[in-house]
Amino acid sequence: MSEDTRQPPAVAVVDPQTPGNLGTIARAMKNFGFEELLVIDGPPLDPDGEAYGFAGQAREDILPNHARPSFEELVNSYYTVGFTARTNQDATSHVRFPFVPVDELAQEVAPVDAEVAFVFGREDNGLTNAELARLDRVCSIPASAAYPSLNLGQAATIALYETQELARGESQLPDPSRDRASEAEIERLYDRIERFLVAIEHREEKRAKTMRLVRRLIGRADPTDREVVTLTGVFRRGARQADSEEPTTDE
Amino acid sequence: MSEDTRQPPAVAVVDPQTPGNLGTIARAMKNFGFEELLVIDGPPLDPDGEAYGFAGQAREDILPNHARPSFEELVNSYYTVGFTARTNQDATSHVRFPFVPVDELAQEVAPVDAEVAFVFGREDNGLTNAELARLDRVCSIPASAAYPSLNLGQAATIALYETQELARGESQLPDPSRDRASEAEIERLYDRIERFLVAIEHREEKRAKTMRLVRRLIGRADPTDREVVTLTGVFRRGARQADSEEPTTDE
Repeated sequence: MSEDTRQPPAVAVVDPQTPGNLGTIARAMKNFGFEELLVIDGPPLDPDGEAYGFAGQAREDILPNHARPSFEELVNSYYTVGFTARTNQDATSHVRFPFVPVDELAQEVAPVDAEVAFVFGREDNGLTNAELARLDRVCSIPASAAYPSLNLGQAATIALYETQELARGESQLPDPSRDRASEAEIERLYDRIERFLVAIEHREEKRAKTMRLVRRLIGRADPTDREVVTLTGVFRRGARQADSEEPTTDE
Repeated sequence: MSEDTRQPPAVAVVDPQTPGNLGTIARAMKNFGFEELLVIDGPPLDPDGEAYGFAGQAREDILPNHARPSFEELVNSYYTVGFTARTNQDATSHVRFPFVPVDELAQEVAPVDAEVAFVFGREDNGLTNAELARLDRVCSIPASAAYPSLNLGQAATIALYETQELARGESQLPDPSRDRASEAEIERLYDRIERFLVAIEHREEKRAKTMRLVRRLIGRADPTDREVVTLTGVFRRGARQADSEEPTTDE
């Protein structure tokens, strides 16, 4: 299968007890661009019940389109990645070791030339050793050693967040996340601040030191166009008010 | 404040409508080592209700110890980071721009020499522009452009997962996550496989090619001690069975 036609990984939930968690998982799937939900031995989903109630917009497609394969069909049809909070400590037992930390999963799975399924277990006990032994890979989410057991819906949410590059197209966020003004604009602001210091009669021997401080502060904040333009205007106006000598026609 | 005595960031929820989400957030806090929950204008939390029901072990400390500051007290006491799914596109509006993507937040906040609070808004509308304008920093979670609006509990879960290095000590996961056998052990396995090929009378002119293939396959799988020892035994036994000439006292 080529990169272009590759489907996002499917999300399989084995023997879930509560429909609400399936709704939460479906919503996270929709948020991060996943489409195919597989429920193995779960409860029926009532369109007026908790699964649909928690699913947000996933109620329109992911939930009504979910499939119900057997565990056997799942392992025969997909490259399966099982999630567990409890790994083994080392290679003396192979059921839960080696594992891939969730933040490395997307990179590891990307070149796999097969349909991939992320497999989550039941709320109380997760996946059994017998189930994990049938899966191709074990994945774990790092958490506090004192309480590493995540809620099913929350574990799936983190897994789908971390692997969204396998699924979604564009994110909603503009790129870049900051937008530093040009150096010329920033220099013009510094110049304006210096003229302001003159106008308010800031002591001459202190002026250079103050300007260094201003450069450091503003420089490390990566000021935007709008911040620089606004501050330039403020200091121009401040200088004008303080120093009636300065011609009001000054730019 | 020194690095050593620094508290993990507090988690503040402004005007939540449903106690269940506070339980989900408290559980994620406990999973990732956060301790201080602040509820601004939220519903009362009934120890027999949904908040406690969803909180897991956080019902023992985080929920009963939560505080109820005003929004004013929050912004006056903490360096505040507001979460929103919707940023502005660029610097023409400053309420939601610049923002920090959630995967860069821990690195950005680590050197801040103040108590930090992560601030989440109400389920339906998040934080208002008026509220965001009072906060120190805006953070956003990348998601599908088609449906970037995360459920409150799920957004907080991802934020706490991504910033857990600011909070928890050790994770539950062993390090490293894989444990490659020594090269000497792996070479011994290759040698054993080659002797097996001889024993089964694999055609001599094909043997080198097959061994290259075996080296490539096993090499890139980073085999563990146990895998190598097990396979070495399997091929030794296989050779012995195939070739009665081989002395059974062979190591």
